[in-house]
This record gives sequence, C-alpha cells and structure tokens, in this order.
Amino acid sequence: MRRSFAGAIKYFAVIFMSVVVFTGTYAAAQISGSMENDPLPLWNNTAVKERIIEFVADVTDPTGPMYVPEEKRIAAFDLDGTLFCEKPLYLQVLIAAEGLYDLAEKDPTLRDEYPYNGAWKRDMDFISDSKNFLEMNLTAFAGMTQEEYQKYVRDFLSLGHPRFGVPYDELFYTPMEELLLFLEENDFQIYLVSGSPQEFIRSFSEELLGVEPQMVIGDAISIKFEIRDGQVVFVREHDYVKPETLKDGKPINIRLKTGRSAILSFGNSNDDIQMLEASGAGGLPSLSLTLYHDDGEREYAYDKGADKILAMAQERGWVVVSMKNDFKEVFRQEE
Amino acid sequence: MRRSFAGAIKYFAVIFMSVVVFTGTYAAAQISGSMENDPLPLWNNTAVKERIIEFVADVTDPTGPMYVPEEKRIAAFDLDGTLFCEKPLYLQVLIAAEGLYDLAEKDPTLRDEYPYNGAWKRDMDFISDSKNFLEMNLTAFAGMTQEEYQKYVRDFLSLGHPRFGVPYDELFYTPMEELLLFLEENDFQIYLVSGSPQEFIRSFSEELLGVEPQMVIGDAISIKFEIRDGQVVFVREHDYVKPETLKDGKPINIRLKTGRSAILSFGNSNDDIQMLEASGAGGLPSLSLTLYHDDGEREYAYDKGADKILAMAQERGWVVVSMKNDFKEVFRQEE
Repeated sequence: MRRSFAGAIKYFAVIFMSVVVFTGTYAAAQISGSMENDPLPLWNNTAVKERIIEFVADVTDPTGPMYVPEEKRIAAFDLDGTLFCEKPLYLQVLIAAEGLYDLAEKDPTLRDEYPYNGAWKRDMDFISDSKNFLEMNLTAFAGMTQEEYQKYVRDFLSLGHPRFGVPYDELFYTPMEELLLFLEENDFQIYLVSGSPQEFIRSFSEELLGVEPQMVIGDAISIKFEIRDGQVVFVREHDYVKPETLKDGKPINIRLKTGRSAILSFGNSNDDIQMLEASGAGGLPSLSLTLYHDDGEREYAYDKGADKILAMAQERGWVVVSMKNDFKEVFRQEE
Repeated sequence: MRRSFAGAIKYFAVIFMSVVVFTGTYAAAQISGSMENDPLPLWNNTAVKERIIEFVADVTDPTGPMYVPEEKRIAAFDLDGTLFCEKPLYLQVLIAAEGLYDLAEKDPTLRDEYPYNGAWKRDMDFISDSKNFLEMNLTAFAGMTQEEYQKYVRDFLSLGHPRFGVPYDELFYTPMEELLLFLEENDFQIYLVSGSPQEFIRSFSEELLGVEPQMVIGDAISIKFEIRDGQVVFVREHDYVKPETLKDGKPINIRLKTGRSAILSFGNSNDDIQMLEASGAGGLPSLSLTLYHDDGEREYAYDKGADKILAMAQERGWVVVSMKNDFKEVFRQEE
C-alpha cells in the first residue's frame, strides 16, 4: 500500500497535532491538579512556584515530550545559602576555627602559628578570608578518624546562631526542605553538591535533610587506610582530593561520581554558575534556579558573590527565586 | 517491686536463651527455605554457596543479631577477573592499545613515539606491561568527550575473544551475575570497584550487569567542562583523579564516594586485599570473598597476582571461591 506524499504529510500532521493537544491538556490537568493539592504550601503562589511545579509535571509525564525516566531524574542542590543560612559565615569555617581554637587551647606553642593564630584570637577578618578556608579545614582535623570529626560537627550544630539564637541545625530553609521532599516523591535522585567538605555535610544530611551519605558530593579531605586496635579506620590527612567542588568542579564532580548530569540545578552564588549551565547536558530537559537573598528582615539581604549568577539568570532565563516574595516562611516557625 | 539479684540473672538468662534458640531456628529455616528455592542454581551445592546464602539470610533477618538495615547493605565487587574474564589481558588495556593503533594509523609521525610505538607494533610485551597502562589510557582518548569514548568501548566489546571466539561482552561469569541479582533482590546496593577507568565500565555496566553508572567506582580520567556547539560537554584530559582505585585506594574510594563501608566484598587479586580487609569496617557484619582461577579447562588457571590474597584468605577465614568446584557453569551456555 502506498500513500501520496501530500497525503502522508497530512496524516502525520493530524497525529502530531492530536499529540500536542492531548499533551497540553494532560499537562495542564496535572498542574492544576497539583495546585489543588498544593505540593509546596510553604511557597507563595507566584510564577516561580508555578514554573517549578510545571517542570516536575512535564518530566514525570510519560506521555509528554519532556519525559525523563526516573534513573536520569537527577537534582543537584548547593548547600550554603541555598538550603541553609550561610551568614555570618559558612558553618564549615566556623567549625574549623573552633577546632583550631581547641587545639591552641591545649597546646600554647601553637598559638602564634598559622593558621591557629587567627582562630586563637577569634579574628573574624582572618577567619572569614576565603584564602584561609582550606588550610583551616585541613589543619583543624588532620589525624582524626572520620567518625571523630563527624561527632565534632554534630556537637557544634547544637550551639546557638549569634543572630537568631536557635541552634544552627534549625537554620535550614523550610520551603527548600519541602521542595526536596516534593522532588523525592516524584522519584528524583537528590544530590547535595557543595564546596563544603563532604564528611561535614554527611554528619547531618541524613538526619536533618533525609539525604543519604552517597548522595553528598562535596570537597573531600584525603583519607588514609589504617588499622587501629585491629579495626580498619579512615584517618583524615592534611591534603585534599581534586578537583574542588566549586565552579566547573561542581558539574565535573557530578559527572565523575554519577556518570550523569543533573536536570534540575539549584544554587545561589557565582560558584554555582557552571552547575546551572550544565543542567540537562546531553540533550535532556533542564531547570536552573538561583536563590536571591533579598530578605533582610527574615534572613539577610546581599548580592555579594551572586552578581554574576543573577546576571546570567537574566540572560539565560534561569529562575530567580526571591526569598522575600517566593518563600511563605524562611525558617521553621515556633509551634 | 524488687527482685533478688540471682532471680534477675535467671530471668534474663531465660530470655537470652529463648532469643538465641528462636534466632537459630529462624535463621536455619530461612536458609533451608532458600536452598529449596535455590537462589543460586548456577553454583554447585558446596560449603561456599551455603556460606553466601547464610550471610545474606543473617543480615536480612530483622530479628537476628547480625541484621543490617538496607541503607547499609553495601556490596563491593571488583570487575576484571571477578565478574569478567581478564585473560589474555585486561579489556581496558586492549582497548587503549587499539585506540593508540588507530591514532598511529592516521598519523604516521606518531608511530615511533611513546606510547604509540608499542601499540603500533602490536607488541604484547609492551602492551601487557602494567607500567604502560596509565599512559596508554591517558594518551589514547585525551580530547574525546565521554560519550565518544564510551561508543569506542562498546564497538570494541562486539569483537571476538581470541580463545573463546565469542564477543567480549559474553565473557561475564554467569554465576557471578546470578549472585549480583540475588543480592539485589535482598536490597543490597551493589558497587563495582575497579582499577579500570570508570567511564569504561559505565559504557556497559547498566546494559550488561544492571548496575547504574553512579554505582561504578573506578579510576577516573580528569575531565574538563567545555561548551561545544552551544552544549556543555565533558572532555577527557591527559591526567587522572587520585587516589587510584587499587589496593588501599579501593576502600578509600568506597568511603569517599559513599560515606560508608561495604559489608560484602568480592575480589580476586592482591589489589583487592585492603577492600576485603575493610569489609564491615565500623563494626558491621562482613563477608569477604576471593575468586580463585583454578579452572584451566573452562577458563584459565593462574595464581600470579593472587598469591597474597589467597594466603590472607587462609589466615583471616575469607571465603575462597573455586571456579572449578563452586561454579556449575562459567560462561553463558549456548542454547
């Protein structure tokens, strides 16, 4: 049986249009359905929220043109400033400063040595200078087993934040926690991708965010294999594993560790630009989002270190999430 | 209400013994049940098979003393010589030699240069010298995107093995494939942990072994973030990411990438010793196994490169799996 060429075109055009119409209706139904059973009640009903819900509906709709099978449904979230308050300073740095202070307290000969000296004086200019971050982290905990380090971190998390008073572990943004949950319910694999050390993140990620340790991609301090009291332990060295999980190191480490690319990427600083650029690499649908800290009242207002990502977002159509306008609440409310 | 001290001891002793008896009966029932519905029909009914089934029954029995929750049920398998025939030479090396040969064919000026020279002459002494492996792998595919490299690997896999005639991708050991499946059904997370490059393994692991790319921990060639034709791609560099996934680098990379340790580890060479030693690190139950190539008829008989792990197995009570005695078949049988 043969058809004329024009006939074939008409035939396919009808099928094509039917698919388009059907898909459109289906997707709209999905979204409106989702809005009735609001999956993100801690977000205000803005265009941003709608775009997130729409993207999730699209990539999970097996009949739609943007469908992404579960195994490729990867989401990558930065930590500091994206899921968690990063002011007055990155938590990992405050903890490293505390570790150095403790060591200098026990051994006075260290008090004049770099990098103990800045920590011992609790010199905030020193502590908040990014040139010192790596050395502080390496020096403070070298020789500890991973378990000992993680206990140190957990103890620190129960201390109070200088402005908000509540313990540090209550300073995760609740709308972001809700988003993680929404993505998980839609069979996304959620990776935390951060310039903070991964064993630092792993010390709380499972308990506080429901993210298992193998889903954490962070900076890695080198470890060595040792046998202590007949047991194998992994001991922190004074060195780190390259590449660093910053800038292009973020999508590179996602690719090295998962063999895949994220389709949804969420950051907040210039260090996250390449992660957002690589969203959907390999021809997959993508959503790139950046959190804008514009809420001095409920959190902090700043764009230092975020100027370039905000400009890129304009240029590329990435989603700018405004803490002030899009978050119904920022932190967990007192009951 | 107070009890006498002796009374309390008797009371607890009765409870303790009841638990022991109940657990023993339960575990035995589990195992015999398993043996009736034999989960490993491609394995002969030997003590080795029994020990594997018993371990799985023990760690999955929520009422037993060896129970390990699902999220910690991690199994680590070496690839070459453990899941796959590694003779006459590691597949990754044969492929790198082929890649170098192709380049020298196109550009005659390369033919005298290291490491092209050995590959161009198809000099097996050169190609099989482990000192050349890394340089061959780095040089053969630098500048390719990961996708281009993976296509090259898949094309190679359809070539015939010099002794067995069948394509390389049919030389996985079927009893081992069966074991992976058995562990997966019992909610183990299976990692492939290999000194071969991880993108090499990922090019076939999902299709042929059902192992997704994020479960592959291998040697990593450095990649760079590049934009080609407006798309983000990851391009192979002439460098690699440390530490290598060999010897202590195996459990170190498992720990760095998963934040955990395996409870079941399966290797076959001296490079796997530390991985087997680290099985169960942190106080978990463990099973360590090594595959002994003692079947010259159906595969190859050799203990070169395995002498130390076989001695350690004796000393530590690790399970030595004899290909000759424990495998009912080695490769897929012709239907």
